[in-house]
Amino acid sequence: MKYGKLYVVGVGPGHHDHMTYRARDAIGESDTIVGYDTYVSLVEDLIVGKEVYRYAMTQEVERANQAISFAEGGKIVSLVSSGDPGIYGMIGLVYEILAEKGWNRENGMYVECVPGVSSLNSCAALIGSPLMTDFAVVSMSDLLVPWNIITKRVEAAALGDYVTVIYNPSSKKRIHQLRDARDIFLRYYRETQAVVITTLEKMLEHQGMLGMITTVIVGNSSTFNYNGMIINPRGYRAKYELVKGIASAIPSDSHEQS
Amino acid sequence: MKYGKLYVVGVGPGHHDHMTYRARDAIGESDTIVGYDTYVSLVEDLIVGKEVYRYAMTQEVERANQAISFAEGGKIVSLVSSGDPGIYGMIGLVYEILAEKGWNRENGMYVECVPGVSSLNSCAALIGSPLMTDFAVVSMSDLLVPWNIITKRVEAAALGDYVTVIYNPSSKKRIHQLRDARDIFLRYYRETQAVVITTLEKMLEHQGMLGMITTVIVGNSSTFNYNGMIINPRGYRAKYELVKGIASAIPSDSHEQS
Repeated sequence: MKYGKLYVVGVGPGHHDHMTYRARDAIGESDTIVGYDTYVSLVEDLIVGKEVYRYAMTQEVERANQAISFAEGGKIVSLVSSGDPGIYGMIGLVYEILAEKGWNRENGMYVECVPGVSSLNSCAALIGSPLMTDFAVVSMSDLLVPWNIITKRVEAAALGDYVTVIYNPSSKKRIHQLRDARDIFLRYYRETQAVVITTLEKMLEHQGMLGMITTVIVGNSSTFNYNGMIINPRGYRAKYELVKGIASAIPSDSHEQS
Repeated sequence: MKYGKLYVVGVGPGHHDHMTYRARDAIGESDTIVGYDTYVSLVEDLIVGKEVYRYAMTQEVERANQAISFAEGGKIVSLVSSGDPGIYGMIGLVYEILAEKGWNRENGMYVECVPGVSSLNSCAALIGSPLMTDFAVVSMSDLLVPWNIITKRVEAAALGDYVTVIYNPSSKKRIHQLRDARDIFLRYYRETQAVVITTLEKMLEHQGMLGMITTVIVGNSSTFNYNGMIINPRGYRAKYELVKGIASAIPSDSHEQS
């Protein structure tokens, strides 16, 4: 039996604009599309005439197995997801299943992960320049990871003064996690009066905005709020005059910004 | 005077394949291209007939100021960079300079950050699925950030059992940093016999591969090596049978893999 191909494709944040050429080409080459219904809908116009298999959200294992089976059976398959399948995405499960089946890259079926613009990339672009310094990425979902490991990581991120990107901050049933994480950050950052204090304290007033598809970015001690934009300086100011003849309009102690 | 526009454009890892449609459109709309020479070369075929300004690597402040000045003067400018300008990239410096000039988004010049596939996205896609769990991103460059802050972050990443993505691991003049970081990870991970031990200990044998454009990903305690691919399980195995009728071929204690 001749194998097909399996593309695990990230289509970016939802706008075709931010999809890569490689993603579009992979979908174009495929005869079969598998994915979570919402993600498949993002590429509706690209999949006309193809065999399309839509799944509900919690059926990741079924989705991955089906995509692999189709490709093993000779089909060219795109398993589509939003963002980047390499960041908390489907590629991990695909490789885990393939590993159980004894697959290997050298002489096994062709499998390609097509990276995409993930929500950390797209959210950062929308709000300013929060990721100019070292950052940690933590998911609040304790469905697959024990909560004590997650809190340990939040503690470590606060201890290391990382900018922190929070995936899956909360869902209808899962509400204490973001509050607990906030409390951990507040223990570390309360004294500094950084703009993150305001943000962290007011954060839970926005429950309506906080769901499974929300990304929260917590700045670090040098992040500042400039006209509603979150800016994280890379350190040039200490070494260079940024604008010739203009004295710095931003206090060097940016912690005091609010 | 009528302002132009400033696009700060990430063109992805170098292949046009992994460039987004938005990046290509922004460059297409621009009459003026500004960038580090190597990055400008990545899009040579897209900038024929445009005014092109190429800069050497260390002239970030000049590059950013020039791009801003051109846009203020009415030109439509793309400041191009590889990867994603929002991750350790030029957008931070651009906003810092604009902030000093008193710019704001509501009634100032149009500025757009076009996110791209960054090296953490593309490297992860190439080597397997290392970023299925929480991860920290740390740059070894102490040109703009004090080294003691960087080591504090490496300590925190190890303490939090983060998968760690290391940017700018070393350069010709800067060689002790990656060694020091490795030593910190070894202090935390030596007892676990994870695959990261092998990788970390042998890491420095590959000096020839380690330069300013290298990205190093250090797995965490649950990362495993499967036929030369780095796989980080998301936790499905504990909750689901991944392949019907196939007993797990991977020890649940994946720390023992090598």
